[in-house]
Amino acid sequence: MTAAETVFPPDTLALREVGLRDGLQMVERFPTTDGKRRWLAAEYAAGVRHFEVGSFLPAGRYPQFADVREVIDTVGALPGAHGMALVLNEKGALAALESGVGEVGCVVSATEEHSQRNARRSRQDAVDVIEQVCRLRDASDHKPLVSAGIAMAFGCSIAGKVAEGDVLSLIENCLEAGADIVSLGDTVGYAGPDQIAGLVRAARNLTDARPLGVHLHDTRGLGLANASAALDEGVRLLDGALGGLGGCPFAPRATGNIVFEDLVYLCESKGFDTGIDIDQLVAVRAIIAEEMPGEDLIGAIAQAGLPLAYPFPRTVSAGQSSHIAS
Amino acid sequence: MTAAETVFPPDTLALREVGLRDGLQMVERFPTTDGKRRWLAAEYAAGVRHFEVGSFLPAGRYPQFADVREVIDTVGALPGAHGMALVLNEKGALAALESGVGEVGCVVSATEEHSQRNARRSRQDAVDVIEQVCRLRDASDHKPLVSAGIAMAFGCSIAGKVAEGDVLSLIENCLEAGADIVSLGDTVGYAGPDQIAGLVRAARNLTDARPLGVHLHDTRGLGLANASAALDEGVRLLDGALGGLGGCPFAPRATGNIVFEDLVYLCESKGFDTGIDIDQLVAVRAIIAEEMPGEDLIGAIAQAGLPLAYPFPRTVSAGQSSHIAS
Repeated sequence: MTAAETVFPPDTLALREVGLRDGLQMVERFPTTDGKRRWLAAEYAAGVRHFEVGSFLPAGRYPQFADVREVIDTVGALPGAHGMALVLNEKGALAALESGVGEVGCVVSATEEHSQRNARRSRQDAVDVIEQVCRLRDASDHKPLVSAGIAMAFGCSIAGKVAEGDVLSLIENCLEAGADIVSLGDTVGYAGPDQIAGLVRAARNLTDARPLGVHLHDTRGLGLANASAALDEGVRLLDGALGGLGGCPFAPRATGNIVFEDLVYLCESKGFDTGIDIDQLVAVRAIIAEEMPGEDLIGAIAQAGLPLAYPFPRTVSAGQSSHIAS
Repeated sequence: MTAAETVFPPDTLALREVGLRDGLQMVERFPTTDGKRRWLAAEYAAGVRHFEVGSFLPAGRYPQFADVREVIDTVGALPGAHGMALVLNEKGALAALESGVGEVGCVVSATEEHSQRNARRSRQDAVDVIEQVCRLRDASDHKPLVSAGIAMAFGCSIAGKVAEGDVLSLIENCLEAGADIVSLGDTVGYAGPDQIAGLVRAARNLTDARPLGVHLHDTRGLGLANASAALDEGVRLLDGALGGLGGCPFAPRATGNIVFEDLVYLCESKGFDTGIDIDQLVAVRAIIAEEMPGEDLIGAIAQAGLPLAYPFPRTVSAGQSSHIAS
């Protein structure tokens, strides 16, 4: 059993709420540390176990992540909860390792154009950072998981179409660098469900026992159709942001992250026992509304409510629930 | 070849814009007859060939459909365009047959509770109306198609869960009554993609060569995921409303019909040649905005625009395009 499999057992659904990182990436107003704690505690009480908690970035430019260590401590104190924090370089990785976070997230762009424009480095440089982070992981005591997120994996807002072969090569490079987990990002919402199915199928041949996640955006309305396709192809690690928080960094006004509540509802409709109480989850939006007044919170379930026919029959076996051992 | 197959050839995609009927069902302000003509002409120019055009209902209570005959004439003058109008009883059916409309739509509820509450009649009475309409069709000169829409086929806002067997029996009854087409309606947006796949698979065994359509609502965010599942199961007749017009009759503020532009985008992403120019289609929203000021128009593609990677590769053969012979 790999290290990643103890946190993400095969065939066990893991739904990750990324509002505290991806949802705060571009905002001007952000929650207090206490607000973040209440957000996490309320989501945890609703049954959520996987969180993206922040970035290790210069606090001067990104004050919303200045308290990332406190947030990591909060997640660490919740039995069975797993947190991921993003790093962009060695300095961030060292800080992340010191924080005791469960998972260190790295990013590499699927296209050279986006890599240069967004991170001012080549894709190879980004893979080199992953290799470096993995070496630091191996030398550490608590050995966090290292994940590699492939941004723009289904299409690029700068280069346009992305060849599947390029993404697959990049996945191989990330795995060779030592990544425990690979996640395919539809960063600008270009993907369709058939494309998701095709790339996931090919990628799973490479990742083998290592978890393969998807990070989907709903920019063009297909986010949940894409999530459904990924689930059908065996993906068991999916991201979403409460209230669709975060928007799209490359298209102002447009929708960004898929709505976490709606993602949970989709999974329940597909027969998964997510372990998450959707009404309770929807209620967590009140904390965000209070902490981030004026921020747009979207979502169909929050608006329409659960159907009378809910809960749906559970067709996926109990061993495939979303809960990790606590 | 059945009568329906000449309009809906097997394996040929038909995307029907229902804004002029379902989209106007509950509105207070509605387009002028000239506005409806411009709406139709602009959609036709964008490549749309299938339209729901109105209802045969008392003009006193439903002034938005008072000009249904003129709208039917407009569609009739467009080469290769096909229009459907809704009827609820024999009187409406007689008027519809006289109008020369291409398709007469009838509705039956999947549950006795909704049938009684919504239409003040039993499901059997509704099937009897379909039989009556089919007899009138057989005695008519131009023999329009008769379609049976099963409302609440995936869950009911009054009865809750709906047994698949009940829906399948109802489909059999509608086919025995003589319906040329059956359409499964997720009237209140209760369905999930796996449920869609299951019911469609079972229903197609019954409808055989007769077209099976789906009429999906996006009330709980799964509308396009459900459309994708229906397409995967071979459904080639799908409804949507431009700008998501129409809302949900049973949940104020909630989203109703799936957004037609986004449905077209989904189909293109799945490799279909819809024959529809999406940018041109999005531009038609300006006519609705002008004719129905204050009406909420939603939609992801209208907001975010087509991706740089568009158009997508066509993976479905040319014979499977959306165009009917003109």
